[in-house]
Amino acid sequence: MATLALDAMGSDLGPPATVNGAAKASRHPEGPRVILVGDAEVIAPLLGEVEHDPDKIEILHAPETVAMDESPRAALAAKPDCSILTAAHLVAEGGADALVSAGNTGAVTMACAKVFERLPGVTRCALGAVFPTERRRGEKDDPFSLILDAGLTLDVTAEDLVGFAIMGAAYASRISSNDRPRVALLSNGSEGHKGPKAIVEAHRILSGLECLDFIGNIEGMDIPRGTADVVVTGGFTGNIVLKMLEGIAETVMRLGRYAMDKSIMYKAGLALLSPAVKKLRRVTDWEQYGGAPVLGFDHLCIKGHGRSSERAIKNALVVAQTAVQSDMVGAIRSGLREAGR
Amino acid sequence: MATLALDAMGSDLGPPATVNGAAKASRHPEGPRVILVGDAEVIAPLLGEVEHDPDKIEILHAPETVAMDESPRAALAAKPDCSILTAAHLVAEGGADALVSAGNTGAVTMACAKVFERLPGVTRCALGAVFPTERRRGEKDDPFSLILDAGLTLDVTAEDLVGFAIMGAAYASRISSNDRPRVALLSNGSEGHKGPKAIVEAHRILSGLECLDFIGNIEGMDIPRGTADVVVTGGFTGNIVLKMLEGIAETVMRLGRYAMDKSIMYKAGLALLSPAVKKLRRVTDWEQYGGAPVLGFDHLCIKGHGRSSERAIKNALVVAQTAVQSDMVGAIRSGLREAGR
Repeated sequence: MATLALDAMGSDLGPPATVNGAAKASRHPEGPRVILVGDAEVIAPLLGEVEHDPDKIEILHAPETVAMDESPRAALAAKPDCSILTAAHLVAEGGADALVSAGNTGAVTMACAKVFERLPGVTRCALGAVFPTERRRGEKDDPFSLILDAGLTLDVTAEDLVGFAIMGAAYASRISSNDRPRVALLSNGSEGHKGPKAIVEAHRILSGLECLDFIGNIEGMDIPRGTADVVVTGGFTGNIVLKMLEGIAETVMRLGRYAMDKSIMYKAGLALLSPAVKKLRRVTDWEQYGGAPVLGFDHLCIKGHGRSSERAIKNALVVAQTAVQSDMVGAIRSGLREAGR
Repeated sequence: MATLALDAMGSDLGPPATVNGAAKASRHPEGPRVILVGDAEVIAPLLGEVEHDPDKIEILHAPETVAMDESPRAALAAKPDCSILTAAHLVAEGGADALVSAGNTGAVTMACAKVFERLPGVTRCALGAVFPTERRRGEKDDPFSLILDAGLTLDVTAEDLVGFAIMGAAYASRISSNDRPRVALLSNGSEGHKGPKAIVEAHRILSGLECLDFIGNIEGMDIPRGTADVVVTGGFTGNIVLKMLEGIAETVMRLGRYAMDKSIMYKAGLALLSPAVKKLRRVTDWEQYGGAPVLGFDHLCIKGHGRSSERAIKNALVVAQTAVQSDMVGAIRSGLREAGR
């Protein structure tokens, strides 16, 4: 059974969301064991109020908390006993198999960098994120692509991008049960000579790697289509792409509500369409998957969205469990080795 | 009256689209004078077949054509008498007030660089593009934002970005009748210290310019919302953002058609919603505006989308006419001067 260290203080919604999410996960017969790391005086009463499997949930007290808006560097230096650092140490020392947090992104990734080791062959670590696409893939008919880096490394070299491609392919093959995911570089043209220098050079290197299904460059319109299963890009572009997708989903919902208020005819029309809208909402609902892997360290970390509800926390725990059970870190290690990194 | 040099050979749809678009523009009493530049043997018979104002349309013969898929550099070197170079020379020599082309983007911008002069204070030129937003702006209740650079300059310096901001503001104020457009830098965080070095430095410079309404950094989700009227970014990111928006619109249409085929209930639902869908389509329909300005030269060029239909060509001509009548180049010149460039 996978044991997961959950930063119980992270998330905009606070410990009620993390504790309830962990409780929900524990009730599933095949669910993971969860160690709730954080202020025991806050966590214990919350846990007492919610149905859970007491054999599968424990509390590890950590007296300090990094707030969502704190400067990560300063906060980690000032609070050595904060929940995220305590949870990371627990994982590094073998007390848990993976770290899960929906806290301050900078603090989470910095805690990983402080406590974990980078894998041999990794020049920079990356934050992966999944987004919904038109195309479905793999055994599970998965309507998501993985994009990395989502914002950890703003300026990337060709070597960084090659590492992201290998790590992303290993992750996608395990999480989506997609044996040979299609990997692409995001650029401003499909030809290999198009794009900034780092991308052109990464294209050259990736074209020579037989262990990857590298399909070349893709362009912006290929993102919603889902042409690639793994989209490789620098953290600056990845961040903008992901936030744009989020913004578009919000705008569409807002325009929909506006139409609802406007007219009875629109209301009737939307009612007839509601099964289709539900389907669409299911596909664009990040809470369903709500976990972004931090890749490149010798231990796995799944970062939940800051706005994670209890359902999103539960799903981040499930993703972490799948990653542990499929030996994600081992898969990344061998991917790097096979590629001669 | 504005006189426009139209590259009659450019556009995927070929001379029938450009000639019909020009004919349509000429029929409007306040429409521009258009000089169709290209192979007279092809253009003249097409023009003969379509209703137009003969006082406002002329043909200037250019025996050669740059194909949409030709390498721009090689093609311009090999074909000095091609339509796009001939049209650019006509503008540079005062025979027309602005250049309009829906041809090979690389060839169009390279022809501008070859024939026109860069304005004093401009380090790099930019291709602007408009995209639909939720928010409306200006006197005309315009639902579009301008983004630049759309792909001309991949790697940008802080100085390049500052120039784009000034040129973009001048353009938006004239085309959208929006006196003080809100200008923003696209970054991975709203705080001024977030982003790659060039963006942080551009933020610092722009914050000190009183002649601009600089609202700071915006993020990906602000793009569909329309938080800024002018979005300033490098050509790599701009290209990806624009193609993503195009891809999302296409995906939504495709999913809509899929729903239509599926069920009578969906069909009925969509029928009731059709006024709203039409409204949405009108907003996302690039043919309506279909012209991207090339900014930074001493003459104006409006680049139409490669897939421009006759309506898109007509609208590109109207945009060029508005730009000429509002002395766009003069406005950019004084914008640069005011900002001390």
